[in-house]
Amino acid sequence: MAIETPDSGITLAPLDVSKLKVTLTSTPKDIPPAESLKFGKTYSDHMVFITYDPATGWSDPEIKPYAPLSLDPASSCVQFCSNVFEGMKAYVGADGTPRLFRPSLNMRRLERSAARLALPPFDGDVLLELIKRLVQVERRWIPTLSGCSLYLRPTIVGTMPGFSVVPSESATLVVIASPSGPYFSGGVKPVSLLAVSDTVRAWPGGTGGHKVGGNYSPGFLPQKIAEKQGYNMVLWIFGEDKSVTEAGAMNFFVVLKRDEGGLDLITPPLDGTILPGVTRSSCLALAADPSFQKNIASSLHAHERKFTMNDILLWSKEGRLLEALCVGTAAILVSVDRIGYEGSDIFLPKCEGGLGPVGRAFREKILAIQEGKEEFGEWSVPCE
Amino acid sequence: MAIETPDSGITLAPLDVSKLKVTLTSTPKDIPPAESLKFGKTYSDHMVFITYDPATGWSDPEIKPYAPLSLDPASSCVQFCSNVFEGMKAYVGADGTPRLFRPSLNMRRLERSAARLALPPFDGDVLLELIKRLVQVERRWIPTLSGCSLYLRPTIVGTMPGFSVVPSESATLVVIASPSGPYFSGGVKPVSLLAVSDTVRAWPGGTGGHKVGGNYSPGFLPQKIAEKQGYNMVLWIFGEDKSVTEAGAMNFFVVLKRDEGGLDLITPPLDGTILPGVTRSSCLALAADPSFQKNIASSLHAHERKFTMNDILLWSKEGRLLEALCVGTAAILVSVDRIGYEGSDIFLPKCEGGLGPVGRAFREKILAIQEGKEEFGEWSVPCE
Repeated sequence: MAIETPDSGITLAPLDVSKLKVTLTSTPKDIPPAESLKFGKTYSDHMVFITYDPATGWSDPEIKPYAPLSLDPASSCVQFCSNVFEGMKAYVGADGTPRLFRPSLNMRRLERSAARLALPPFDGDVLLELIKRLVQVERRWIPTLSGCSLYLRPTIVGTMPGFSVVPSESATLVVIASPSGPYFSGGVKPVSLLAVSDTVRAWPGGTGGHKVGGNYSPGFLPQKIAEKQGYNMVLWIFGEDKSVTEAGAMNFFVVLKRDEGGLDLITPPLDGTILPGVTRSSCLALAADPSFQKNIASSLHAHERKFTMNDILLWSKEGRLLEALCVGTAAILVSVDRIGYEGSDIFLPKCEGGLGPVGRAFREKILAIQEGKEEFGEWSVPCE
Repeated sequence: MAIETPDSGITLAPLDVSKLKVTLTSTPKDIPPAESLKFGKTYSDHMVFITYDPATGWSDPEIKPYAPLSLDPASSCVQFCSNVFEGMKAYVGADGTPRLFRPSLNMRRLERSAARLALPPFDGDVLLELIKRLVQVERRWIPTLSGCSLYLRPTIVGTMPGFSVVPSESATLVVIASPSGPYFSGGVKPVSLLAVSDTVRAWPGGTGGHKVGGNYSPGFLPQKIAEKQGYNMVLWIFGEDKSVTEAGAMNFFVVLKRDEGGLDLITPPLDGTILPGVTRSSCLALAADPSFQKNIASSLHAHERKFTMNDILLWSKEGRLLEALCVGTAAILVSVDRIGYEGSDIFLPKCEGGLGPVGRAFREKILAIQEGKEEFGEWSVPCE
């Protein structure tokens, strides 16, 4: 599929997997033991590297040795942060086949993120083929220890130099891979959250619903402040009604006991301020699945709707707040044991092993699908 | 001043101008004629280059040949946009001395921007000395044609690799220089604005009051859409009351006729969503200065206060809206001839030469101070 630019009539080269050139490193690195792996701190030997030139389109894709990017200090990504990215994980199952988890969702989101920052368009399905090739090349880097994975980071940055505030006409697309341990060093140990409303992660009309690099660094300082106060992460509160939105860089769920029996599972709706997370979507889909429901003693009723800190306070007082869950690709799912709010702490019920029944059922199911131990629809996609 | 880190007791090296090492290029570039210069598209021969290492502090500063940055694809600035910058201009006056315009304001703002993204702290006064050295080294690059200047771009980026959403412990600080013509190719020709409220530039608790790279790329798409509809820039409207905030990447003023004689000059207040612009601050200071007032036939009353699109509509209907001005370091000041709002255009009075009396007085005064033709306080700072 060639990209026609209506203005000029020039045909620009699309991303084309058939033009892939693979150059293997002559100095492959030693692979560290899986037990020693931190999250996102070790990088594999190779990367996907492609550039976009407004005169010619996408370059022939390369898989080549991992290397620094050479970026003009005046380039769009350095100056104006025209950067978008994705987070994905490759696992290798007992059958020896590397697998990706619902990668099409990441590709669709990356297409939307790039469009939001007026970066050059690309076909995410072709990029997915290139990512699969990278996973095959880096197969030895996929940790087999349960809970570890090869974390993949597709990234697109605008490279046009210039100080006028205009879209970048050129870009670089890289995919790097990091053999990773759990996001939280404590594994499934619950995390504590500090409810923060004086700094605000996302706003209607902003970019909170897209995976845009600039959404993240403004959260560094609140994260540091939360840690100094003894909390693991920020719980982002929005607006005068103190709506609950996200936790750190993760989506957020609560599990409530219903008066009439059964459980409610609630997460804020995708109103443009919430990242449409793949794990979020997967939890909602599982909650609606009768076969999954059997893993939980009570019936589960999922809702995407707004809720506030006052709701959480009330639910906690009433004894209805059973679990609070942070979900995302990096950590999959952790539960919350404490939420700091206006100088007091809201405590969640203690659960054996750090996870309540709903959190545990989600985590185990998703991990089993990711590791190829169970099938669910076509969520687990082999890299063949 | 050494930076003590209270946690470790280690003394980290501060920015130190006495350790500056200058390495001149062996292949100096030809300087293009000033008439051909665009804004921010040509770069000089050298740059300031400094790195920060959490174990040792700031490196010995270098002025060295302009070169690409080598950045790990996993680095904080590429992934999470921990990027801050400043825009400044060097002029050379009739006395042959290069001058900067109120550079301390830029240094204080850069210190605050860096702190907002949890980047390493630095002493802006020392950085200013290094910038002056760069200007001296690049003296031949300062265009002498009026309206042209050597645009300077101090930039700090977080360089720590990693996918955890945490502050970058390492950083690179560069200052690059661009001999530049006017920001708008039309010079002082008025610009048209499209009022936009479905995308939002900045919000309370966000980073709109800081010069953070991630504030800018989300504006690329609205800018492109505005251009397609025949407008030069976006006028950023905020909230249900349709408050007017900024225009493109510039601060915004209106000039109104008073019933009782005289003029009101109004700009939105620094409530955290508005960049505290150096040109904005200069216009407000000039407006309060009796000697400047003599340049304008009417008395001028400056206000920092909120106003809305409804106010603009009303003022326009009443015939009180005399001028609308966009101000910023890059363009200094341009006037507005038309504002598109909800499908109609609000037209501003036509002015001979593209500028009304207030806009012209500001622009001419500021340019005269910048070019060293007039003195005003200590706004024009020689690079000696």
